[in-house]
Amino acid sequence: ASTVALGEKQQPEEEEKVQSGSNGGAAAGGGGDKDSKAIASYWGVEPPKITKEDDLQKHHAPVTFLDKLAYWTVKSLRLPTDIFFQRRYGCRAMMLETVAAVPGMVGGMLLHCKSLRRFEHSGGWIKTLLDEAENERMHLMTFMEVSQPRWYERALVFTVQGVFFNAYFLAYLVSPKLAHRVVGYLEEEAIHSYTEFLKELDKGNIENVPAPAIAIDYWRLPKNSTLRDVVMVVRADEAHHRDVNHFASDIHYQGRELKEAPAPIGYH
Amino acid sequence: ASTVALGEKQQPEEEEKVQSGSNGGAAAGGGGDKDSKAIASYWGVEPPKITKEDDLQKHHAPVTFLDKLAYWTVKSLRLPTDIFFQRRYGCRAMMLETVAAVPGMVGGMLLHCKSLRRFEHSGGWIKTLLDEAENERMHLMTFMEVSQPRWYERALVFTVQGVFFNAYFLAYLVSPKLAHRVVGYLEEEAIHSYTEFLKELDKGNIENVPAPAIAIDYWRLPKNSTLRDVVMVVRADEAHHRDVNHFASDIHYQGRELKEAPAPIGYH
Ligand SMILES: [Fe+2]
Ligand SMILES: [Fe+2]
Ligand SMILES: [Fe+2]
Ligand SMILES: [Fe+2]
Repeated sequence: ASTVALGEKQQPEEEEKVQSGSNGGAAAGGGGDKDSKAIASYWGVEPPKITKEDDLQKHHAPVTFLDKLAYWTVKSLRLPTDIFFQRRYGCRAMMLETVAAVPGMVGGMLLHCKSLRRFEHSGGWIKTLLDEAENERMHLMTFMEVSQPRWYERALVFTVQGVFFNAYFLAYLVSPKLAHRVVGYLEEEAIHSYTEFLKELDKGNIENVPAPAIAIDYWRLPKNSTLRDVVMVVRADEAHHRDVNHFASDIHYQGRELKEAPAPIGYH
Repeated sequence: ASTVALGEKQQPEEEEKVQSGSNGGAAAGGGGDKDSKAIASYWGVEPPKITKEDDLQKHHAPVTFLDKLAYWTVKSLRLPTDIFFQRRYGCRAMMLETVAAVPGMVGGMLLHCKSLRRFEHSGGWIKTLLDEAENERMHLMTFMEVSQPRWYERALVFTVQGVFFNAYFLAYLVSPKLAHRVVGYLEEEAIHSYTEFLKELDKGNIENVPAPAIAIDYWRLPKNSTLRDVVMVVRADEAHHRDVNHFASDIHYQGRELKEAPAPIGYH
């Protein structure tokens, strides 16, 4: 399956700006920087960084009917989301993460049951999908610290989860190829949405508050990190989910089972 | 909730024998022992050992109606299992692990969805239960290497999983207190069953073959380990699951939610 750059969006320049912005910010972090570097290297692991700016523009061009169905399903979900949240990206992120954490759990659970029934290994895919679900849940826990849900948002999440969980469950049973493709496109939208979030932060429309403790702990960020740094690493996670899910769909397209290709294990 | 020693079974002496047998075996491991110790300490982690022999006799005495319901549900499932498998403990272990891997997945998934809906942490319980499911799946993958399932066993697993998954799912929704208690008692039976397995190995009725590679890798066992060593560590895992699930049930009995008490994270 081919993966080409999105032509319609002016992302390349945006991402590059965002990229150098982040690096510059880290380098010019001021007084606390020495300490924060010590924290970051304590684990022997550098905090995740996006090194290739084109990584954020990767797009799976929809070719087959199922691809187009997946693509337009996601696109059509975008409109009501845009209308509902408008430019409240913190709130939007929090709400969308409650949905984003569902597919990994459903896929992981179904593969787990299949592995047990068939007395077969999953080739690492159970862990990969459950890790994705956990990672998305950590996104939610992080954005919760930044913006609190209101009662009608809680009610909305309740309904949306009920519908989406069952819809995704059925879709995965009928066509895992379609299900993973939908998630791939959802993640492409998530990347776009977090890029918009970064723009609003840079414009000063959203306050660049200090990173919540949970984010510093989970992503091993320097201790003087800000919301902007958090959005950067979250967006990098979404890029990883996008690749994992398009890859899973591609495997199914080739008439193979996931366990035949080793799962791409990320840093999360 | 009180946890007392089982009076009806003559386990204390058995376990002690089993315990010293294993230690003796490891110490007298022969030529490859130096190498194997190097492997075991490479990770800085000693291979898991049961140090307290009474750990295997822990039993939650059923007091309330729900406890007794859980206890007798498990006991009544024991009879057909005994009749079906008789003394083929390798086969029995393999089959029962396909069932044992279900509750952790169901509980973990339900807590995950609840965490998302309520914008709340789970207090580590999602990870604990999903880890339990993974651990049980690794038990299955291990015993698969030792005994191959026959076609009618595959068919049986298919049916049993369908029934058990849904039954446990409903039970967890209606009464997590009951669900976790049932698993606690299932694990007590599992410990008993693995103790019988060890007896058959010691009598020579089951051949003490070398440990499969997957078990040596997963439990970081010395490389000259045998099936007996594998059964020992698997049984230790079951004791951990028993404690986790009885503890979870106890929390619910006190009218509290799991997230209010930190989850006991084991070595797996
Ligand atoms: Fe996310
Ligand atoms: Fe994602
Ligand atoms: Fe087990
Ligand atoms: Fe167990």
